Amino acid sequence: MARAEVVVIGAEVLTGKVTDANGPFLCAELRALGAELRRLTVVPDELEAIAETVRAASARVDFVITTGGVGPTLDDLTFEAVAAAFGVGRRRDARLVDVLRAFFGDAVVEAHLRMADLPEGAELLFSDGLRFPVVKVRNVYVMPGSPGILRKKWIALRERFREAPFVLRRVFVTLEEGLLAPTLEAVRDAEPDVTLGSYPVFDDPAYAVQVTLEAKDAAAVERATRRLLERLDPRTVVRVA
Amino acid sequence: MARAEVVVIGAEVLTGKVTDANGPFLCAELRALGAELRRLTVVPDELEAIAETVRAASARVDFVITTGGVGPTLDDLTFEAVAAAFGVGRRRDARLVDVLRAFFGDAVVEAHLRMADLPEGAELLFSDGLRFPVVKVRNVYVMPGSPGILRKKWIALRERFREAPFVLRRVFVTLEEGLLAPTLEAVRDAEPDVTLGSYPVFDDPAYAVQVTLEAKDAAAVERATRRLLERLDPRTVVRVA
Repeated sequence: MARAEVVVIGAEVLTGKVTDANGPFLCAELRALGAELRRLTVVPDELEAIAETVRAASARVDFVITTGGVGPTLDDLTFEAVAAAFGVGRRRDARLVDVLRAFFGDAVVEAHLRMADLPEGAELLFSDGLRFPVVKVRNVYVMPGSPGILRKKWIALRERFREAPFVLRRVFVTLEEGLLAPTLEAVRDAEPDVTLGSYPVFDDPAYAVQVTLEAKDAAAVERATRRLLERLDPRTVVRVA
Repeated sequence: MARAEVVVIGAEVLTGKVTDANGPFLCAELRALGAELRRLTVVPDELEAIAETVRAASARVDFVITTGGVGPTLDDLTFEAVAAAFGVGRRRDARLVDVLRAFFGDAVVEAHLRMADLPEGAELLFSDGLRFPVVKVRNVYVMPGSPGILRKKWIALRERFREAPFVLRRVFVTLEEGLLAPTLEAVRDAEPDVTLGSYPVFDDPAYAVQVTLEAKDAAAVERATRRLLERLDPRTVVRVA
């Protein structure tokens, strides 16, 4: 199972100017593709904070997705930071310069061309329908911050991440969480490979807790669900989904 | 200026089951109070991941806010992880046991009382109108994950974080980001204490980029805004807010 991290680069998120849409989108997408997202970090547009976070993430997991900081202005530091994270320099990529020149035409300025100053060893992932390639540096996929553009690029990229899906079962109960706790522990001990979650709600008269049971092994999830249901008073079970 | 980090503890966010509401809420609140949020990290319900993240965050900034993982079930590991982060043990807090017994009455079970197993050195912050106190361990405020309860607790707590506010000016321009880049660099060089942000939009015919100018020093923000406007062709400026 591939393990991933997401690094959202954007002071606008940390300062509350914008609610991040890319993080939630990537959380749902990665899950649907069967990848395990281990961590999501939001950092400001600062060279050192980005570099340190990318370096640590890259070492911890199979692949990292960054969003933001790839434009032509002074708060766009992602490529410089990724280069610093890996201790490499940057060089102007001739193919990307061609793409930028073709896009901006006569209006092209030096600030645009600086967007082609990529970390050494960067790969360009071209795809039909994408105006600009995705830049990959080692196991780091550098994506833009603009949600509409990120989605387009992600769609071009996503199939390379697909693997066996997670199987999820959800059991809604009226039992209060404290009373449910020993039952969940017994199920966890019997099926340690199934991840259990317990989500109380305090404003829904229909149920008190949603229990989630999840793994890639469908048979294990079914066994765990059966064990859970056997241990519960049926009158406390509202719904199994 | 107080520097803060937020640690969101919750596999449900990383697995895309739930879109985190607490992070965006705290981002906006901390900004409004004048605190500088340096980083927001979402980690799974795992002892080691939480402990490592809390330890690093606590060392980097003035205060840390965690959300989630404080209930009575097996995915509630925050207190255990905060204790591990600081290399201290846990002991059952008698005052919190009293609060829990008063709340649950005859229905109280051992799983409830385990919620009172706090890291050594924990402080309880009681407040009028709060059923349960906020638990503080060193510079870490441990908050619940349920958004409604978090908001209530936050409101009881927030005035302790208030300091001089940030001053924000926003300039909307029709100029494309690459053409704007040298102007922003000149303003940054002249007013290095003002944080500049540049946010392009690609689907709004009214403007191309929102420039933000921000600092606690209102006079510096006004100077920087004036410098920016002096350097721009007035026909490219849509609005100053």
